[in-house]
Amino acid sequence: MGPDRVVGGRMKHIGLLRDQASLVVHGDDKRGIVAAVAAVLTRHRANIIALDQHSDDPEGGAFFQRTVVHVPDLPAVLPALEDDLAATVGAELGLQWRLRDLSVPLRVAILASKSDHCLLDLLWRQRRGELPISVSMVISNHTDVAEDVRFFDIPFFHVPSAAGKDKSEPENQIAKLLAGNVDLVVLARYMQILSGAFLKEIDVPVINIHHSFLPAFIGAGPYKRAKERGVKLIGSTAHYVTEDLDEGPIIEQDVVRVSHRESLEEMIRRGAIVEREVLARAVLWHSQDRVIRWENRTIVF
Amino acid sequence: MGPDRVVGGRMKHIGLLRDQASLVVHGDDKRGIVAAVAAVLTRHRANIIALDQHSDDPEGGAFFQRTVVHVPDLPAVLPALEDDLAATVGAELGLQWRLRDLSVPLRVAILASKSDHCLLDLLWRQRRGELPISVSMVISNHTDVAEDVRFFDIPFFHVPSAAGKDKSEPENQIAKLLAGNVDLVVLARYMQILSGAFLKEIDVPVINIHHSFLPAFIGAGPYKRAKERGVKLIGSTAHYVTEDLDEGPIIEQDVVRVSHRESLEEMIRRGAIVEREVLARAVLWHSQDRVIRWENRTIVF
Amino acid sequence: MGPDRVVGGRMKHIGLLRDQASLVVHGDDKRGIVAAVAAVLTRHRANIIALDQHSDDPEGGAFFQRTVVHVPDLPAVLPALEDDLAATVGAELGLQWRLRDLSVPLRVAILASKSDHCLLDLLWRQRRGELPISVSMVISNHTDVAEDVRFFDIPFFHVPSAAGKDKSEPENQIAKLLAGNVDLVVLARYMQILSGAFLKEIDVPVINIHHSFLPAFIGAGPYKRAKERGVKLIGSTAHYVTEDLDEGPIIEQDVVRVSHRESLEEMIRRGAIVEREVLARAVLWHSQDRVIRWENRTIVF
Amino acid sequence: MGPDRVVGGRMKHIGLLRDQASLVVHGDDKRGIVAAVAAVLTRHRANIIALDQHSDDPEGGAFFQRTVVHVPDLPAVLPALEDDLAATVGAELGLQWRLRDLSVPLRVAILASKSDHCLLDLLWRQRRGELPISVSMVISNHTDVAEDVRFFDIPFFHVPSAAGKDKSEPENQIAKLLAGNVDLVVLARYMQILSGAFLKEIDVPVINIHHSFLPAFIGAGPYKRAKERGVKLIGSTAHYVTEDLDEGPIIEQDVVRVSHRESLEEMIRRGAIVEREVLARAVLWHSQDRVIRWENRTIVF
Repeated sequence: MGPDRVVGGRMKHIGLLRDQASLVVHGDDKRGIVAAVAAVLTRHRANIIALDQHSDDPEGGAFFQRTVVHVPDLPAVLPALEDDLAATVGAELGLQWRLRDLSVPLRVAILASKSDHCLLDLLWRQRRGELPISVSMVISNHTDVAEDVRFFDIPFFHVPSAAGKDKSEPENQIAKLLAGNVDLVVLARYMQILSGAFLKEIDVPVINIHHSFLPAFIGAGPYKRAKERGVKLIGSTAHYVTEDLDEGPIIEQDVVRVSHRESLEEMIRRGAIVEREVLARAVLWHSQDRVIRWENRTIVF
Repeated sequence: MGPDRVVGGRMKHIGLLRDQASLVVHGDDKRGIVAAVAAVLTRHRANIIALDQHSDDPEGGAFFQRTVVHVPDLPAVLPALEDDLAATVGAELGLQWRLRDLSVPLRVAILASKSDHCLLDLLWRQRRGELPISVSMVISNHTDVAEDVRFFDIPFFHVPSAAGKDKSEPENQIAKLLAGNVDLVVLARYMQILSGAFLKEIDVPVINIHHSFLPAFIGAGPYKRAKERGVKLIGSTAHYVTEDLDEGPIIEQDVVRVSHRESLEEMIRRGAIVEREVLARAVLWHSQDRVIRWENRTIVF
Repeated sequence: MGPDRVVGGRMKHIGLLRDQASLVVHGDDKRGIVAAVAAVLTRHRANIIALDQHSDDPEGGAFFQRTVVHVPDLPAVLPALEDDLAATVGAELGLQWRLRDLSVPLRVAILASKSDHCLLDLLWRQRRGELPISVSMVISNHTDVAEDVRFFDIPFFHVPSAAGKDKSEPENQIAKLLAGNVDLVVLARYMQILSGAFLKEIDVPVINIHHSFLPAFIGAGPYKRAKERGVKLIGSTAHYVTEDLDEGPIIEQDVVRVSHRESLEEMIRRGAIVEREVLARAVLWHSQDRVIRWENRTIVF
Repeated sequence: MGPDRVVGGRMKHIGLLRDQASLVVHGDDKRGIVAAVAAVLTRHRANIIALDQHSDDPEGGAFFQRTVVHVPDLPAVLPALEDDLAATVGAELGLQWRLRDLSVPLRVAILASKSDHCLLDLLWRQRRGELPISVSMVISNHTDVAEDVRFFDIPFFHVPSAAGKDKSEPENQIAKLLAGNVDLVVLARYMQILSGAFLKEIDVPVINIHHSFLPAFIGAGPYKRAKERGVKLIGSTAHYVTEDLDEGPIIEQDVVRVSHRESLEEMIRRGAIVEREVLARAVLWHSQDRVIRWENRTIVF
């Protein structure tokens, strides 16, 4: 019953990591990539403290690597390190790469509708210092969650849905709010479909939580259909949003057991617990730059 | 590291329960059913040792109940108890009912193809006395598993698949082998689709294991499609077989986590562990008469 | 991506059930209890909509039963039903029984220290109408969570810990706050040990969440000790508080996977997710009167 | 319901990997290890297809790395590669290292008593080609499993337990059978405690399956004690055997849910499913050289 010493009321921030950076490299596999990348890092006095590497075919195919390095006085080292990576990993080896300073929070906008469970869970976790993100704003097509959001000292914007089929008006409003302000958009049970034009316009990744175990029950009303089909597990799926509804790359999924005993309302209540947990994991992993999109799938290191 | 005392090499039979019977009752809900059923049982000196009851609507709807009773010298009491149930629960209350002597094993035929994992797991569990079943025969359209089956002193019959589309010839052979000999047919990764005519002919329940988390990946090659879709969990589904392929009432489901690391072969290996476990649970529950079919769903008590 | 229709911003209250009551009966097993109880219920026009019954020995032992009934105009029926239960189930059969009107919320006090995760989760679930409870007050030996609590319009009381070993002063203060006001006390990571005298004085059940998979890591600092031992799963345990620290009857437990990768801080973060979920389940089940204490264990229906 | 194409009756061997080797490196962390190791591998035309690396402290501490490489014509390359690793990784960098040809099965002896579930599961997985092991022999202090073992064409040796406290006689017999013949010993519910002298004598790793979620219920009769304590989950633990009973480094653990409904026999039956699964995973990971022992813990890559 006693305390673990490091727990306080508000935990020390475990999301942001001082003097640490993540380096993601991917592209066509060839011999020597790991050695070349490691050589660059060593040249800049970066100590590798975690490394995950995956090749999808032993005899050549796609190559994926995420490395976490510790570099004393990282901000001073970054520019030269980036130049070196561009020259060797980029130009010479012909690979995609990205470097992220893990002491800098990702700027996130959350879009929500009336449901509060995914939204509040992200706000709590952010406040506790568990997520390396800073929530820049919450946008909703309803006002139900406004007061809760502002209690966290986060701006809330109400952008009502369009009455007709043309959603360009609210999408334009949202795009203006986001422009230049965020690195990631999270749909926390946002009940509007986003157009391809909007996704292109905002040009940052968008993560959605779908309230079923995709590809089961694609589309509307998944819990109701799950009850009708008599499944024994219900689930949630966090995925990147693409133009194809519910078809984007899956980041994380989980399930919970149900039986004949649960009413539809009780299934929704249980599902909500899984939704908030799955979405929080996906946002954590994305903000730690652990997720690589590849074709329509993800590598999560 | 020490022993639990009751474990022996071959466990004592925990599947068969001497002097115990299960009574399943279902139909339209009305006030007083539980009292009426309990009164009948008490009249015949049956002590209720477990009871599960469910109504799908507080104000009337469908009623489901499973009761386990302990009756000293059960075989002597059964005929009068059954007469009484027929008169009160059946005729008066207008309900479906069935009584099963839990000391009598269910006679089961297993149909398999080449894969051995679900088949052998059922045979082991039966031999260990974990399942209240007696496997009367194994039928396969291949001969790969013949030697394994006969090691368990169980008859093996080889019924090759039909070359063309007409499957009536092998189905007739199988139906003849089953006729009068079994209470349940289990498809342990049997790679043939059974016709509606055959299901009608054999007139016993048929349980299948599907190697996906239904309704995701209905049909052929689910693991391959799961890999292509990039799901993070794969699963299995045990269900009763109906004429509609992969659409019958679901008895049990479970999942296991996968990632980008797993090859298709490794996914199949992990999935096989879930398949055998889910199928074994479904067979156990069915043989304990815990499963009630209702519309296209199941109540599992 | 579409909506399930019944979800709104604030869900309809699914915790409170109009015209429904739960009846718990337990004591020495004998033939005819189910019939006798059902007869009483039927006499009072109560329709049984769920029933779970368990006997711990087929040939006599302890008997446990929980029944949920639907009774139109329940408040009017309650007094006569209670008289009848007292006469038949209590006096004649010599059994313990209790009847709870499921439309009336349980009055709960939450005791917390600095950690907010279990506390906020309970407050939020209560506000969503998921728990059939009404939180009467929050008491803490620190002030960290005061503002959060009051945002939910719930009274917050600060009762500082005693400086020395004698805790009678703060315990007396707490007991006065609780007296007559609550049906249940929940320790939501409350970092003080309660004396036997206090538990006797307040005379309502107390539920605690312990941050380990009991009986592993009894006492202080369980996550640190789990890391040192190198376990691969960490867990939480919700239990009734008794005078024997961490030894009371267990209501619920769950676990989450860890590996060498997790720092102590990350283990604590993961554990917190399990803590809040396990505690919420225990509070839900207790407030639905699903939990029967028996010796030092629980039957959870 | 259709087939995944790669499944046959006996799967193709997925445990042994032609032209692949694993390299494990660990010791004190310092900058440049990954680069140095990768440089050696690249010099010998080894393509890195998977790499996991972990440092237990960002600013220096212990370093752990497992790399899987693909090398065309591996056997011809091995000697020179090993010389190079000894010179650079061993002598220059002062690190522990080991290289394993993943096309060569590990030679395993299984020690069992009367229980068959863990034993048969390992034998069956080996036969299916799922484990990169070759079971050289099974030794038991009973004869119950002899016939089953020989059905798999594996030698069975009966070494009865000593009547008194002195176990040196049977331990000597077992040591003679093992000497030079095996790389790993697996205790598949072997109900004898092994002496420190024996462990030293045989000088190969020994993996045990303990039938509880360690450190809960250390010692004898864990299921009985779990039932008495009223836990809601039971588990199993696979660990390396040391002189301290049930205290060796944990490789893997898992749990399964139980309730008041399960008798002790049913708990044992459910536990057995977890035992065989946890032991199989531990043996798989050890035989793929994924497990690094460090102090009294493991890093599992």
